[in-house]
Amino acid sequence: MIDKVSKIADEIEEQIVGYRRDFHRYAESGWTEFRTASLVARRLTDLGYKVKVGRKVMREKDRMGLPSPQTLEKHWQRAVKQGGDKEFLTTVKGGFTGVVGILENGEGPTVGMRFDMDALDMHERKSPDHRPVKESFASVNDGVMHACGHDGHTATGLGVAEVLMRLKDQVHGTVKLVFQPAEEGVRGAKAMVSAGVVDDVDYMLAHHFFSGWETGEITGGRNDHLATSKFDVTFTGAPAHAGGSPNEGKNALLAAATAVLNLYAIPRHKDGATRINVGRLDAGTGRNIICAEAHLLVETRGSTTALNDYMYDHAIRILEAAAQMHNCSLKVQAMGSAKSANSDAELAKRVEKIALEIGGFSIRPPKGGGGSEDYTYMMERVQKNGGLATHIGVGASLGNWGHHTAEFDIDENALKSAIKLLSLVTLDITKKDQEQGK
Amino acid sequence: MIDKVSKIADEIEEQIVGYRRDFHRYAESGWTEFRTASLVARRLTDLGYKVKVGRKVMREKDRMGLPSPQTLEKHWQRAVKQGGDKEFLTTVKGGFTGVVGILENGEGPTVGMRFDMDALDMHERKSPDHRPVKESFASVNDGVMHACGHDGHTATGLGVAEVLMRLKDQVHGTVKLVFQPAEEGVRGAKAMVSAGVVDDVDYMLAHHFFSGWETGEITGGRNDHLATSKFDVTFTGAPAHAGGSPNEGKNALLAAATAVLNLYAIPRHKDGATRINVGRLDAGTGRNIICAEAHLLVETRGSTTALNDYMYDHAIRILEAAAQMHNCSLKVQAMGSAKSANSDAELAKRVEKIALEIGGFSIRPPKGGGGSEDYTYMMERVQKNGGLATHIGVGASLGNWGHHTAEFDIDENALKSAIKLLSLVTLDITKKDQEQGK
Amino acid sequence: MIDKVSKIADEIEEQIVGYRRDFHRYAESGWTEFRTASLVARRLTDLGYKVKVGRKVMREKDRMGLPSPQTLEKHWQRAVKQGGDKEFLTTVKGGFTGVVGILENGEGPTVGMRFDMDALDMHERKSPDHRPVKESFASVNDGVMHACGHDGHTATGLGVAEVLMRLKDQVHGTVKLVFQPAEEGVRGAKAMVSAGVVDDVDYMLAHHFFSGWETGEITGGRNDHLATSKFDVTFTGAPAHAGGSPNEGKNALLAAATAVLNLYAIPRHKDGATRINVGRLDAGTGRNIICAEAHLLVETRGSTTALNDYMYDHAIRILEAAAQMHNCSLKVQAMGSAKSANSDAELAKRVEKIALEIGGFSIRPPKGGGGSEDYTYMMERVQKNGGLATHIGVGASLGNWGHHTAEFDIDENALKSAIKLLSLVTLDITKKDQEQGK
Amino acid sequence: MIDKVSKIADEIEEQIVGYRRDFHRYAESGWTEFRTASLVARRLTDLGYKVKVGRKVMREKDRMGLPSPQTLEKHWQRAVKQGGDKEFLTTVKGGFTGVVGILENGEGPTVGMRFDMDALDMHERKSPDHRPVKESFASVNDGVMHACGHDGHTATGLGVAEVLMRLKDQVHGTVKLVFQPAEEGVRGAKAMVSAGVVDDVDYMLAHHFFSGWETGEITGGRNDHLATSKFDVTFTGAPAHAGGSPNEGKNALLAAATAVLNLYAIPRHKDGATRINVGRLDAGTGRNIICAEAHLLVETRGSTTALNDYMYDHAIRILEAAAQMHNCSLKVQAMGSAKSANSDAELAKRVEKIALEIGGFSIRPPKGGGGSEDYTYMMERVQKNGGLATHIGVGASLGNWGHHTAEFDIDENALKSAIKLLSLVTLDITKKDQEQGK
Repeated sequence: MIDKVSKIADEIEEQIVGYRRDFHRYAESGWTEFRTASLVARRLTDLGYKVKVGRKVMREKDRMGLPSPQTLEKHWQRAVKQGGDKEFLTTVKGGFTGVVGILENGEGPTVGMRFDMDALDMHERKSPDHRPVKESFASVNDGVMHACGHDGHTATGLGVAEVLMRLKDQVHGTVKLVFQPAEEGVRGAKAMVSAGVVDDVDYMLAHHFFSGWETGEITGGRNDHLATSKFDVTFTGAPAHAGGSPNEGKNALLAAATAVLNLYAIPRHKDGATRINVGRLDAGTGRNIICAEAHLLVETRGSTTALNDYMYDHAIRILEAAAQMHNCSLKVQAMGSAKSANSDAELAKRVEKIALEIGGFSIRPPKGGGGSEDYTYMMERVQKNGGLATHIGVGASLGNWGHHTAEFDIDENALKSAIKLLSLVTLDITKKDQEQGK
Repeated sequence: MIDKVSKIADEIEEQIVGYRRDFHRYAESGWTEFRTASLVARRLTDLGYKVKVGRKVMREKDRMGLPSPQTLEKHWQRAVKQGGDKEFLTTVKGGFTGVVGILENGEGPTVGMRFDMDALDMHERKSPDHRPVKESFASVNDGVMHACGHDGHTATGLGVAEVLMRLKDQVHGTVKLVFQPAEEGVRGAKAMVSAGVVDDVDYMLAHHFFSGWETGEITGGRNDHLATSKFDVTFTGAPAHAGGSPNEGKNALLAAATAVLNLYAIPRHKDGATRINVGRLDAGTGRNIICAEAHLLVETRGSTTALNDYMYDHAIRILEAAAQMHNCSLKVQAMGSAKSANSDAELAKRVEKIALEIGGFSIRPPKGGGGSEDYTYMMERVQKNGGLATHIGVGASLGNWGHHTAEFDIDENALKSAIKLLSLVTLDITKKDQEQGK
Repeated sequence: MIDKVSKIADEIEEQIVGYRRDFHRYAESGWTEFRTASLVARRLTDLGYKVKVGRKVMREKDRMGLPSPQTLEKHWQRAVKQGGDKEFLTTVKGGFTGVVGILENGEGPTVGMRFDMDALDMHERKSPDHRPVKESFASVNDGVMHACGHDGHTATGLGVAEVLMRLKDQVHGTVKLVFQPAEEGVRGAKAMVSAGVVDDVDYMLAHHFFSGWETGEITGGRNDHLATSKFDVTFTGAPAHAGGSPNEGKNALLAAATAVLNLYAIPRHKDGATRINVGRLDAGTGRNIICAEAHLLVETRGSTTALNDYMYDHAIRILEAAAQMHNCSLKVQAMGSAKSANSDAELAKRVEKIALEIGGFSIRPPKGGGGSEDYTYMMERVQKNGGLATHIGVGASLGNWGHHTAEFDIDENALKSAIKLLSLVTLDITKKDQEQGK
Repeated sequence: MIDKVSKIADEIEEQIVGYRRDFHRYAESGWTEFRTASLVARRLTDLGYKVKVGRKVMREKDRMGLPSPQTLEKHWQRAVKQGGDKEFLTTVKGGFTGVVGILENGEGPTVGMRFDMDALDMHERKSPDHRPVKESFASVNDGVMHACGHDGHTATGLGVAEVLMRLKDQVHGTVKLVFQPAEEGVRGAKAMVSAGVVDDVDYMLAHHFFSGWETGEITGGRNDHLATSKFDVTFTGAPAHAGGSPNEGKNALLAAATAVLNLYAIPRHKDGATRINVGRLDAGTGRNIICAEAHLLVETRGSTTALNDYMYDHAIRILEAAAQMHNCSLKVQAMGSAKSANSDAELAKRVEKIALEIGGFSIRPPKGGGGSEDYTYMMERVQKNGGLATHIGVGASLGNWGHHTAEFDIDENALKSAIKLLSLVTLDITKKDQEQGK
């Protein structure tokens, strides 16, 4: 089976690299992956997948941290101009950019795979020593850049789709390819999970390329994701002239300042690491007006979901009380969230075993972190239903550039490796005679 | 009439000074004026007044800032030993130390007079250069001292009572002599007012001796009282070991600290002076325990009742929110309050005119201040009912000692002057043929 | 003399109204009054005044609250295009828009007059029911509007200049016409005072039109200005990833929040009204970054200069300590300031007496307020030197529009009245045979 | 050698239990162990040890958290009455209650052992079901109780002293028995370490009885001590009348409240657990007086010494800034401190190996905690000098009573076991032919 898969992978490699460069060139950030999603949906359809797009795979109200309607519309128009698929562009309009491709072949387990598609709102390096510039696939969308490798993830997904479809007969069960929007800011996974997209999944996989790992290095199961909640806060009071009638104001800035001090003072927790931050506060208008409105960008984190919940619950109570204290109203808007999650060791080991069988891979310990990832929503849901889930780290080094920098790029050789690994794990899980460990 | 009154005043002067020295010697502080009140009630009864004492002239729940039941009991026992009137001691037990004496003589206006009876919890100077020591009437009750002249006020009240009873035929109307407990800390007047004691009063008078004014100086109507609310606050949270499980505590000290900062930050008011103070904070037990309980002594003030209400309402809202913020419960206990009040100019002028007719008085402008006085409750009630009220300042200088100091003493010559003034104002108001200005 | 002055005033009225409308049309806000100042300087020169402009009448470092160099340059270019005087535009470049015109005629007192020239950064009402629109003199400079009548003040100044020059022989002494930039935000007077512009003035006058007073009403001496300090504050700390290394940040937002709470908590002052406001706080960048920089717009006020100094000194100490507390550096930049000041009653009465002699005026009591005015710097300097100063209020009602609203306009009839009044007061002060009271 | 030691241990067991009960009966809390220390010094002297007491083994200024001179004197007088050793009582007067006994026998390593002697300020259970009551050795010093087993530690030390002296010939090297005061509150070790008491020690041992472990269970090396700093803080401002002149106060309570909020808000640290607590705040006098003095009891902790230092440094900076912010002075007084420390695994293993050879012991993993122990000062010093140190946990269960409860008691069988273990470890380290690993 390794040979069969490798052969197909060799055949499609150039095409897959082409996809990656196309997505890189037309980078789209969270919730505006109109072109990307429409082309993914088109390709999956063409390959023979049953494809579900947009509202069918996303619960509208659980989408977090959307851009303004104006921004969504502007970028949708851009997608139209940049060659998005006409049919599917209609479906994804308004920020419904999730796509699911399904391959069914009789009885057997369901294997889910998550691929994220969004770029970042940042400027790509324009210097000719930056390979995307030199080889002419740098982003043409100014201020948007694939600086975290999700272009590669999406291309990998299309490669896996082709391999598994060509070997459909060997797949005894169901494959669900989940193309997710807005992973950056941990905004997109929740809406797909709450729409039930992974409810029937027995084995859940996802991978992430790391520019800081040597190509070939992999970790079968990462465990270092912090649970997090991101939310925007608005205190609304009432203005008044600071000299003439200070008592008539309802000072939103006093509410915000009181909240800030008390948020940082949430007690440390005996069970492990917690975090809180008010990264931004924007309050008031003129110097001589009592501040009537204050906006805060807040996040909590915890080394477990329970610890993050502890922080979040305290934060909300503090914010509510601070508003009440200064006669202000309070609005809290969820902007993103992720869970802590542990990869199942059994599944992680299986991935690593197959990698070693394929060859060209070496195993490294789980990367230490402090970051967050909303794929954890999918892991949690699958594990809760009795399934197994893992998050695979894959080396793709092309230099020393960090993620989320203007110089970021990945080693495209990693694409083929990842396609082979994910395909073979799927085929292994769904092969006929095997005792499924579930 | 001046001659008649003067003659009686001369006759009783020695006796009145005796009363004053007796009250000074057996000083009793707020709500424990058991001996004083019982002797006042006895004397009024003996003079022929209709006397109401205790619960009949005080609404129980409106008594503020009472000492503990143990303290009340202990000092009541002291009053028994120190010669309180047996009959009335029963009535005033438990902190019901208000007394009202009524003289009725047919149709005519009702004149009310307020005399406060309480001493202060402080140590009297023991040095022989302190006249009460030299002349053997210093307080025998350690830690209690008449350092604000209320002993003189009470004695004046008994003098006025005798003068008016002897001249009863000249009184066409009703006289109500109100002997009030616990003026210090503005704790006692409200309970007498809410019991209706001054509801039928047409003209309300009270006087205060000032050691800083020359004897003979008077002000017919003081206007400088700040409205105030005094209250005790308790935040109750939950303890926890600060090293082992800090997250399990509910930190009452954090609630208190947040409250303190925000209390002082209540916006200034365009309409005039406001004040706030947390004079005392006592929180927590051991260094390594999350603080589970915090006690605060708070007061608000305003140059008008409305301004004090503004401060008080904001303070309560801040305290409630601070408790909620840190998961604590909140208890607020009223400990005292007073209103702002303006003496009616018409009545004040009348007092001053009579003083000048009596002779030996000179008029000075209303004293500037920053203090509070709960006689304002009585003024407000009478004025609301359409009556007139005034607060008279009377000089009683005997040196440079300030009120509320261990050296305080008053010029006893002022007693006779005050008796004459109050009696003559009452006789003037109740004389037969006069057009009452009400 | 009244007749002579009235005759000239009648002759020039149309021209003066034309000036006012021209300034209104080409409104320029504080420190960018390039066109206005250059035309004023030109006109004074043409009339025969000795004219000093720019650095000669302003100390550079005492100019407060300047716009950015870019903004200054842009608006200077606008002034060039809109017909500013070529010669003087060079002199006022860079925000040196003060102008002083001097008329000397032998021995005698020096009379100073202040006229402010700046408009506000706000949008003028575009509706045809707004007279400046209907009569085609609405501001052509979008976002700048004469909404406080300074266009009228400047025009009045040019009118007074012409009257006095024509009657130069009657002026026995010196006249100094001070055209001041940036009165809004109390930013411009200090630099002219510290350059010595009013050091030799014996009598200092200024007037302000009020749309809320009936035309004809005047107050000879206003006394209600609050002293104030306006300043911008920056806390600079250090950023850090809020999840990965929170301990490495220096949290400027925590410093700012601590400062805000403590600023509002500065104790009330026994001597009178005080004010503090943090009108705006802008802090931080991203949600997951410890905030490295926070900007605050602050102002203090006091009913006297001493009370404002009390607030300012406390504020600075609090800000410094808040910075130190969170390892941040602090920058405080003065953006404006004004003094409290009392008009000299003697001079105010003289103004009112002359107004009544002229006819058409009625006297009203000083307007109650809560605002600030940096003409107080000039009053203070003149009074300190033994001179007399007053601030005259002049009614100019044209409806109910408040100052600083988009609908503001003034009754142009008030221009002639003000010219007559200021001219006649000056002529009265400088007339030959008079005993000067100085 | 085990047999020899066991025989002596059997012989002295009753005597040692007698010591323990004597110390329990005459319990003395930190810095007042006058009787205990004098009797220890007497016994060591009688056994033949070279004994150093008081100032010779303690640096005066490094003693932390001493009681008042009055308390020291009162308890010293108590010790005199309760049969302290006359000679040594003189030496320990004033809180110099450390004792060191030295046994030297030629060349060889130096083995140090720490025994703490202090009781707690708490009331012992008086019920007859409490064994010390039933068997008549409950504390006769009201409000002082050995509720953490230090009576047993001290008795163990005297037992070890006798065993080693009897087997002096087998000791090739030096033994230093360090009897330390004031371990509770981590106050006493620092002063002995800074006096150089363990500077020459190659192997440092200490043990702690745990009522929660089965008798016989031991851990050769505990590693769970949190570093900690305990300190008292005083803000001193200035009082003022809250109604009359609030601006004249320097509000120590505002300083304290600001400090409290910011102390809890010290950023979490990426490297591990940190703690902060203000366990007690006592501020102000009367309700209507601006608070002039505030006292705080504070502690910081960290899972490493570096983390505690991080917390302490931030805390001090915050306190200093809070004082400056409100014009107050600041006093910080160290009241206790401890380090984090790891037992050397090599030495711990050696202890456990010998325990198993002796028999009657079982090994349990290091106890998890959250507590602090100032023996860590000695460990750190010895380890810094190239020596080895360990802290041994020893089970002594007699029921379910927790440490620091009124019902606490220990299984006295553990005394003999501990004597045998510590003696045999010492004899093993100092035996002639052994290669010393140092």
